[in-house]
Amino acid sequence: MSDFEGVYPAIVTPMTRAGDLNEDAFRVVYEGNVRAGAHGFWIAGGTGESVYLTEAENKRIAEIAADQNDGRVKNIMHVGAATTAQAARQAEHAAKVGVEAICAVPPFFYGVEDEAIVEYYRVVGNAADLPLFAYNLPHATGVDIVPDLMAKIQDGVPQLRGLKHSSTEFHNVSSYVEMGLDCFIGSSLLMAPALAIGAVGCIDGPLCIVPELWVDIWNAHRDGDGGAALAAQRRAIEFVTLSRSIPFPAGFKALAGARFGIDCGDPRPPFSPATEEVKALLIAKAKAEDWFGC
Amino acid sequence: MSDFEGVYPAIVTPMTRAGDLNEDAFRVVYEGNVRAGAHGFWIAGGTGESVYLTEAENKRIAEIAADQNDGRVKNIMHVGAATTAQAARQAEHAAKVGVEAICAVPPFFYGVEDEAIVEYYRVVGNAADLPLFAYNLPHATGVDIVPDLMAKIQDGVPQLRGLKHSSTEFHNVSSYVEMGLDCFIGSSLLMAPALAIGAVGCIDGPLCIVPELWVDIWNAHRDGDGGAALAAQRRAIEFVTLSRSIPFPAGFKALAGARFGIDCGDPRPPFSPATEEVKALLIAKAKAEDWFGC
Amino acid sequence: MSDFEGVYPAIVTPMTRAGDLNEDAFRVVYEGNVRAGAHGFWIAGGTGESVYLTEAENKRIAEIAADQNDGRVKNIMHVGAATTAQAARQAEHAAKVGVEAICAVPPFFYGVEDEAIVEYYRVVGNAADLPLFAYNLPHATGVDIVPDLMAKIQDGVPQLRGLKHSSTEFHNVSSYVEMGLDCFIGSSLLMAPALAIGAVGCIDGPLCIVPELWVDIWNAHRDGDGGAALAAQRRAIEFVTLSRSIPFPAGFKALAGARFGIDCGDPRPPFSPATEEVKALLIAKAKAEDWFGC
Amino acid sequence: MSDFEGVYPAIVTPMTRAGDLNEDAFRVVYEGNVRAGAHGFWIAGGTGESVYLTEAENKRIAEIAADQNDGRVKNIMHVGAATTAQAARQAEHAAKVGVEAICAVPPFFYGVEDEAIVEYYRVVGNAADLPLFAYNLPHATGVDIVPDLMAKIQDGVPQLRGLKHSSTEFHNVSSYVEMGLDCFIGSSLLMAPALAIGAVGCIDGPLCIVPELWVDIWNAHRDGDGGAALAAQRRAIEFVTLSRSIPFPAGFKALAGARFGIDCGDPRPPFSPATEEVKALLIAKAKAEDWFGC
Repeated sequence: MSDFEGVYPAIVTPMTRAGDLNEDAFRVVYEGNVRAGAHGFWIAGGTGESVYLTEAENKRIAEIAADQNDGRVKNIMHVGAATTAQAARQAEHAAKVGVEAICAVPPFFYGVEDEAIVEYYRVVGNAADLPLFAYNLPHATGVDIVPDLMAKIQDGVPQLRGLKHSSTEFHNVSSYVEMGLDCFIGSSLLMAPALAIGAVGCIDGPLCIVPELWVDIWNAHRDGDGGAALAAQRRAIEFVTLSRSIPFPAGFKALAGARFGIDCGDPRPPFSPATEEVKALLIAKAKAEDWFGC
Repeated sequence: MSDFEGVYPAIVTPMTRAGDLNEDAFRVVYEGNVRAGAHGFWIAGGTGESVYLTEAENKRIAEIAADQNDGRVKNIMHVGAATTAQAARQAEHAAKVGVEAICAVPPFFYGVEDEAIVEYYRVVGNAADLPLFAYNLPHATGVDIVPDLMAKIQDGVPQLRGLKHSSTEFHNVSSYVEMGLDCFIGSSLLMAPALAIGAVGCIDGPLCIVPELWVDIWNAHRDGDGGAALAAQRRAIEFVTLSRSIPFPAGFKALAGARFGIDCGDPRPPFSPATEEVKALLIAKAKAEDWFGC
Repeated sequence: MSDFEGVYPAIVTPMTRAGDLNEDAFRVVYEGNVRAGAHGFWIAGGTGESVYLTEAENKRIAEIAADQNDGRVKNIMHVGAATTAQAARQAEHAAKVGVEAICAVPPFFYGVEDEAIVEYYRVVGNAADLPLFAYNLPHATGVDIVPDLMAKIQDGVPQLRGLKHSSTEFHNVSSYVEMGLDCFIGSSLLMAPALAIGAVGCIDGPLCIVPELWVDIWNAHRDGDGGAALAAQRRAIEFVTLSRSIPFPAGFKALAGARFGIDCGDPRPPFSPATEEVKALLIAKAKAEDWFGC
Repeated sequence: MSDFEGVYPAIVTPMTRAGDLNEDAFRVVYEGNVRAGAHGFWIAGGTGESVYLTEAENKRIAEIAADQNDGRVKNIMHVGAATTAQAARQAEHAAKVGVEAICAVPPFFYGVEDEAIVEYYRVVGNAADLPLFAYNLPHATGVDIVPDLMAKIQDGVPQLRGLKHSSTEFHNVSSYVEMGLDCFIGSSLLMAPALAIGAVGCIDGPLCIVPELWVDIWNAHRDGDGGAALAAQRRAIEFVTLSRSIPFPAGFKALAGARFGIDCGDPRPPFSPATEEVKALLIAKAKAEDWFGC
């Protein structure tokens, strides 16, 4: 059995009206997710506005997450950054404040060679010396960490423990599993089939709004009830469709706020904010369909 | 319950040394698959060298398949062709000789508009008036029949019954299922997860060599035993890896021939033939690993 | 100086109302182009509905083109086909009836290995033993014949003379030129810049309607007048935009017919026909803007 | 005649052995380029390690560039950043210290909607109120600013003056020109053909090593001598091939340093450094081929 498995919401990073980190709201959403059965968190990742956060904000979020958790579940803290040095500093700090694991997107913007990717992960992994999850997110980073490249990382980075797989190459899940990695599927639409092929869990933004929907899939899977897992996945898909009906990640922030009773603010530009009308309509729909009653 | 479900080998098209259709070998491989538990066939499709066959060959294969089957399982005959007229003639003929369903790739080579794709399927569907399966094979055709386009086809083509989905967009399986379509997954690597998300079965080339491996997945799934399905899928993946270790589809032809004791010949150029040495080595490996004992 | 250079219209394949080859209309359009100054033709290629034609039609078109030309300009006959055997038969026939060169798309639909592509071109090139032009059309064939692959073809196929380059990798023009190949640019929008980087001419569909526009670019280039070439190219772009305002290749057939006073018919399904209204409107615009007066 | 035209080296950002900005080396390379005939600079852009620089470094580079220039040529300062706020601060500062224009990549990493891209450019453009150049670099940013999107930016951003076009969609140069934009081609391999279709100049990394090679193309173009422009472009391509024979941007830094007699240091990780041996060999080749004698 894996230490890292199950439902890991990719938690939003709530902000104040002034656009600063809203620590209280972060704690409220975090706590609501723990109570709803989340097994861990993916923090300051894609949904958490990752590379739009400053180094200071990234570090502060790690502190709050560790403090709020107090050892109950597992925090996987995103420390990826444009430069290796910043990522390493964030990694070192995350370890110091007590998260359970770190994760990082590979170098982005510039397409660097495989060797440079391995070296980046080596430095970052070494800086924290915690379990490390690669974040395979090709549509954002421009590089698909295919099994061959992952094998090079595995060879060079002793901390590598697994990955969040958000590439369209779904069949590679099997390869990562075969390599002994803990593979979380990065799509909330695909938890049931991913578990069926050996993934250890699911990490995605919609999970931080109503984690219960994915906990249902997880429990059905653990009980060996494929029919129930499929039914639960179908229900989850319905909710994901609603949550994505306005631009990312404004919809997730609005819904998470509505679910847990706290304002999560707008995403940071260049993300578009949603108007109050649009948010109100989205929340009204979610309530009318009784999603928050799960 | 669907009429079309389970393990549908994409059967090779055996050829003589002279490069002509080898009817006897086709019957032998077909029969071996039926005895091994195949629930149906995907005939003259991608693995069957589809668009490299002449119209006369396509029609003759439909006749042999229907004759050999004699109503025991379900034949889905591929009738797609470069022109709508040829596809329609093949469709009409397939219906006349008694296959259970037809399938067709969308127009390829030229990227035509959605309306032209719908019209093509309308004419082809109407020519056979049998259940029609779209063949979603974007890497060959250049068009991904995404759910929105599939909905247009569904609106315009009363015969549309389902699809073989060989796109990397795995998550669209859910959408096709939601639309009421019978969705076969087109990758032998993904039968277990596809069933877990609502697919009705699997169609692929390696299935025509050792269908038992996928019948195991199917049976485990029907019994609600996810663990057994995953174990069976992992075994199947091992075999697929072997079968793909020499260029497509020469490896499939060599292995299917070895399994069922008949020479299936070389693929038609521009496909590369495999040398006798390469084929012998592949077959020796398959035997050493005891795949034909299943 | 190259034997193959200048303005090579990719001529449409006119059809009768019944959908058969319209030989008379072909001759009329051909002759109009010769009179308008075309230096050669690209026949039965992409614009000419290539892979939608039967082998018999392909052969007949080669005969007509050679007969109508009678040695005045250069015919490059497209012989590419789904199978190597068909392409080779077409190549052999084209040589026999007297075209000046052949061309062929690489194997399409299935993505075969480089070695298979070289072998295909070797067989085809050998069948005609005429100058051979590769047709680099990745959006249709799925393979970009990048310089490395082209070098393998050049090594293996003594007849290779050049290519029509219709890939978005414009910068590769330099590489082909450096390799000693006659590189025609495959976009009517890019003749002037392609000549500026060493291309020998332009081949595209709109050229068969008003070749004069590209002859102007060619002449300006030969006179070393870059300003005039740019002005002529801009004018040509305006016309191309008009010609592409209805689906390909219906717009080209309608306009070529209107220009040369003969009905070129509809494209073959799955291409969409244009309605009479749409065609009339397009032709009216072309006349209002006086394109046929050039 | 355009104010912004000609040869604009994308200048490297020299660094010390400790990995900090090397201001002296920047000034030396800058000055060497001015003396060699550069008409302007693209500063802290792709070659200049752009998004790997801190905000403080970006601002300092703008100061040095403006100071060193002292009004002789035109500085286009890159101010693009992960967040709109940082980009706007950098833009405001760049204007304050006296650069002639700014440029910015669009939002990267996350794929935001067109409206969010326009809003980002509106805020950035307004912050500097200088001529603004969009940096169309799809392989790094994930978004191709195609003419339709550029038209939206043009509508919403009064400061938009032009672009550096580094997309493979070369034919769009015409469209940008038609829209009244100053279009620099972003490939050192394509200056001659780009000028032939209406571009105003070239911006790329190799230009900061031996700008004379592109000044030759520019002068030939201004003299209307297409043959000389092509010959000069071919020579430039030879040099680019050499400069790219080791990983980007280590090769550019090594060669620029060797040319102008100052150590430019290694690129910032995750870029790979080149070993001393590799750099020495590259420099020896450049000298043996006499590139620094131009």
